Amino acid sequence: TMCSNKIQASLLVVSYSTYLLLGAIVFRALEKNAEKEQKMAVIQMKEAFLQNFTRLTAADVEQFVKNLTEAVQRGVYPVGNESQTELSNWDFSNSFFFVGTVVSTIGYGTLCPKTAAGQIFCVLFASFGIPLNIVFLHQVGKMLSLLCERLGRWLYAKGMKKKKIKFLTLLFFLVMGILVFLCLPSFVFQVAEGWSYSEGVYFAFITLSTIGFGDYVVGKQPDRNYPPYYRSLVAIWIIFGLAWIALLFNL
Amino acid sequence: TMCSNKIQASLLVVSYSTYLLLGAIVFRALEKNAEKEQKMAVIQMKEAFLQNFTRLTAADVEQFVKNLTEAVQRGVYPVGNESQTELSNWDFSNSFFFVGTVVSTIGYGTLCPKTAAGQIFCVLFASFGIPLNIVFLHQVGKMLSLLCERLGRWLYAKGMKKKKIKFLTLLFFLVMGILVFLCLPSFVFQVAEGWSYSEGVYFAFITLSTIGFGDYVVGKQPDRNYPPYYRSLVAIWIIFGLAWIALLFNL
Repeated sequence: TMCSNKIQASLLVVSYSTYLLLGAIVFRALEKNAEKEQKMAVIQMKEAFLQNFTRLTAADVEQFVKNLTEAVQRGVYPVGNESQTELSNWDFSNSFFFVGTVVSTIGYGTLCPKTAAGQIFCVLFASFGIPLNIVFLHQVGKMLSLLCERLGRWLYAKGMKKKKIKFLTLLFFLVMGILVFLCLPSFVFQVAEGWSYSEGVYFAFITLSTIGFGDYVVGKQPDRNYPPYYRSLVAIWIIFGLAWIALLFNL
Repeated sequence: TMCSNKIQASLLVVSYSTYLLLGAIVFRALEKNAEKEQKMAVIQMKEAFLQNFTRLTAADVEQFVKNLTEAVQRGVYPVGNESQTELSNWDFSNSFFFVGTVVSTIGYGTLCPKTAAGQIFCVLFASFGIPLNIVFLHQVGKMLSLLCERLGRWLYAKGMKKKKIKFLTLLFFLVMGILVFLCLPSFVFQVAEGWSYSEGVYFAFITLSTIGFGDYVVGKQPDRNYPPYYRSLVAIWIIFGLAWIALLFNL
């Protein structure tokens, strides 16, 4: 059964990864062109505004600001010129990131489907993706709880009472989790993103609680150089962090 | 025990409501002034831009657009003039709405704490608020499951087999839930918000799954007249909808 458990776990990891990969590809296909058109429209509006600058009135500026605000709220970033419309928000890497925020229900909302097809696919994709993610996190949680069991067995061998062991492993699990998933990553975010430490804690908590406001998102500042593997490290942090919280609620 | 259950339930409702009310008051106190200052700064930038219009260059417009984009991303809406800075996003009603999106982990992110004090309070508030919300939804879910039990007893009295009853009540629970919590509200949103029906379904699903992107939020379009009690109806829909989904996952 030890072996069949391993096969089951591997199958789960493979189907989970495949599901996310396929989702990312479909979202990219559905959203990429629509986004490009919207971005083009904003840039043209900006150019028309600049050409009219000798006849500008307060009302013109107000309308311009209103249009820009709506564009930004729709997720179109009106900075740059036409040549930069090639830099899509819906490249594979961003689409995969988006898919991860959907199945985990974090839902930052910095990237959202704008087409009707993309929105309908999002509903269907999440309907199966969220339960699949829960099963996957449960499997990861099992790995984490093995650590606790080992500590328990070690304490038992030292002659400690069972009740005391249970309390100590729980405390260990809580304190270690807060250190490893909240305090330590916040320090990494402080360095890599240039945030204050309390902003790092705030971001880490808002992410792992799956609130996911989207006011702070890692790896998104165009003027910063991120260390290699930064995004992968963040993904691993989110997966184990969510599994840890799910375990906490089940204990 | 029937009576002591009712007392317990009432106590839960009272402490849940009080917790949310107090949270809303604290967030408003922490965030209102900071928001006003930020809004003032954006409006002053806009006025300075307008006064310089005879000497505008492409680089000036680019910088202006960049500043505006950042302001909108930080949640400051740069539309209007100085007199409108009195209209705060952090009035009591919005602050209460915000608190609801925190404890439910929906986290639209259309309104977020910007001050360090507000962010730290948000972490503490959610640490106790999310578990409290789960307990509260569990209690609401019990009410919903009573409906299923009644249907089951009625079918049992009609002489139906237990296995068939279990399947039928589950099917009833699923189909009725989709109708009452997804299909019907989507139609209401279509009328009240002027969205397409598929946008309504998308919003309803993204909300009840607690993904909460924040690309669609109800009751937020300044140029629309919403029916009275619209917001209260939406709040009731969210509470019962979340309780329904939590029950589905536990069945």
